[in-house]
Amino acid sequence: MKVGDRHYRSIWPDPSGPAVHIIDQSRLPHVFETLRLDSAEAVAEAIVTMRVRGAPLIGVTAAYGLALAALRDPTDEGLNRAAMKLRETRPTAVNLMWALKRMWNALLPLPHAERAAAAWREAHAIAEEDVALNEAIGRHGLAIVRREYEERGEPVNILTHCNAGWIATVDWGTVTAPIFMAHDAGIPVHVWVDETRPRNQGLLTAWELAGHGVPHTLIADNAGGHLMQHGAVDLVMVGADRVTRRGDVCNKIGTYLKALAARDNGVPFYACVPSPTIDWTIEDGLEEIPIEERSEEEVRNVRGLDAGGRYASVAIASPATAVANPAFDVTPHDLVTGIITEKGVARASERELVAFWPKERRREAQLS
Amino acid sequence: MKVGDRHYRSIWPDPSGPAVHIIDQSRLPHVFETLRLDSAEAVAEAIVTMRVRGAPLIGVTAAYGLALAALRDPTDEGLNRAAMKLRETRPTAVNLMWALKRMWNALLPLPHAERAAAAWREAHAIAEEDVALNEAIGRHGLAIVRREYEERGEPVNILTHCNAGWIATVDWGTVTAPIFMAHDAGIPVHVWVDETRPRNQGLLTAWELAGHGVPHTLIADNAGGHLMQHGAVDLVMVGADRVTRRGDVCNKIGTYLKALAARDNGVPFYACVPSPTIDWTIEDGLEEIPIEERSEEEVRNVRGLDAGGRYASVAIASPATAVANPAFDVTPHDLVTGIITEKGVARASERELVAFWPKERRREAQLS
Repeated sequence: MKVGDRHYRSIWPDPSGPAVHIIDQSRLPHVFETLRLDSAEAVAEAIVTMRVRGAPLIGVTAAYGLALAALRDPTDEGLNRAAMKLRETRPTAVNLMWALKRMWNALLPLPHAERAAAAWREAHAIAEEDVALNEAIGRHGLAIVRREYEERGEPVNILTHCNAGWIATVDWGTVTAPIFMAHDAGIPVHVWVDETRPRNQGLLTAWELAGHGVPHTLIADNAGGHLMQHGAVDLVMVGADRVTRRGDVCNKIGTYLKALAARDNGVPFYACVPSPTIDWTIEDGLEEIPIEERSEEEVRNVRGLDAGGRYASVAIASPATAVANPAFDVTPHDLVTGIITEKGVARASERELVAFWPKERRREAQLS
Repeated sequence: MKVGDRHYRSIWPDPSGPAVHIIDQSRLPHVFETLRLDSAEAVAEAIVTMRVRGAPLIGVTAAYGLALAALRDPTDEGLNRAAMKLRETRPTAVNLMWALKRMWNALLPLPHAERAAAAWREAHAIAEEDVALNEAIGRHGLAIVRREYEERGEPVNILTHCNAGWIATVDWGTVTAPIFMAHDAGIPVHVWVDETRPRNQGLLTAWELAGHGVPHTLIADNAGGHLMQHGAVDLVMVGADRVTRRGDVCNKIGTYLKALAARDNGVPFYACVPSPTIDWTIEDGLEEIPIEERSEEEVRNVRGLDAGGRYASVAIASPATAVANPAFDVTPHDLVTGIITEKGVARASERELVAFWPKERRREAQLS
């Protein structure tokens, strides 16, 4: 999508050598910078520090990381070492494991000499497929937004949490694809953007929406329930870091609270989920998904622009204050109205999800 | 309660002249300062800017404000003008109206010459009564915490939202009274403290708990649902800015989301409410309580200490970003396990609340 006048993707290969460029998201929207990563180590660092983030983009970036590793050491041991390092970066996002498995399966049968080139091709393919997945999710989500608009004839108010935007993917975004498409189709949409403490990724969503001209309003995470009680929200749409085969949705911490409010107020709650985000190996998200506990500093320090317009942070709590920082929560499937995938909209049930991917499920079961 | 080695109340009369001192809460916990207020105008400014805050303390402070006004102009017109100005400062807190009404009723029958002295006495009385109300709430709340501890024999984890602590009252606090008393009684308690964006009043709660040595952990507002899903919360206890006669609880924005999560996970949800916070004139909180919409700047700017340890703020969102900032929400009575009052614990129903205050209800109805 566009940044100013120029079209960007969130990740792209260096035309002149073995490296990828990323948008450094750690200081967005305050500072826009790109970075060149030329090793699996640099890629792992970028994922850990959330310079790249968003489940789909993490998967693609990890694939490029393994491709960079294959250039240096294409042996099974070398690839395995790099894959382990990449896998450890973020325990919750399933796309990461999915992408590494896919790379592994593509490379393992090949002679060492062919692996580096094949790895690079496979990583490109994953990136291109991600764009196509998001476009397809956009079309299916657009139909939901359009129906809402046609039924009521009023602007459609969509609440979203965290950032499931184009920079969380390679392009389009999972939640923003339907929103951008609806806006482009002349359907009046307005987005309530949760700021999403502690890391305030909602600011990224606001930045993306502003870039595309979509009306939106930033709110504290606390405000969404009140807005739903007063009829100000027509749809909730969120992304996901992992979805179980019965449709439990693991997403950024706080998503579950919005799902509860949506149910309490009769507001449809959708998760926008490309198939690599589905973990067919597990059923019960609350029991089976490891929730990443991130640094206390994310809660203690808030970053933005200081009075002089410089990027800075303030400490809201002293180092003596104990802090907990679970990064994700699980919204049980019975709170989810539907899962918008590249194949269509499924109810959050094993029956409907497996109906879309009977083969993949078997393949996954074999791999795991 | 104590600040360092010294005992403070949140408001106290100047021993040497017609003025009150307050703790300036607008920069707490980063900067501890007290302020001397010597006019109704100064009092109104302190309430609007949230130098004083918390429904009970706002009521007491407004009473002192009217007493200061009575010194300058004790006529009906003078008092009415001051009362109107004070009343406009915060539309949601009912204690404010309650205190002004009570002052008005005490002063109106008196000759002008006697009003100033009587007003000062009445404001003192309201302040002293507030301390007693909180102590009584503490005793009733303590019984709930003790029961929880005795049933399970493990430390009691209490989640609270915003600040219903001693600085939101004259002393003790509504939610902190039972917590301080439980801690002092040797019951192991641990408090999950919601930071409470946008103004982060949870930091005040953390500061109070640290001052009294109570174990606590600061969390983002998004985290509470996840903690409840995993059994890490035994009780939710919140304050209130206004409670309807059937027990709908209007409190800081985001309270409703925690109440939903409490219900979904079988966690008891209590509001700690002194009777001046009950608005007997209304039943349906969602329909009838005006929700204060506060400045967008509260969401855009976050305050804390900069790298040099100076009090500063950073802008997380640009002035071009639209922001909404509703300050309160309403938790419907059916999500409330009980209302802990100075008279005991009532279910959130008109029948049980009126049983505690049959007279007051009639008196209020007459006044309004």
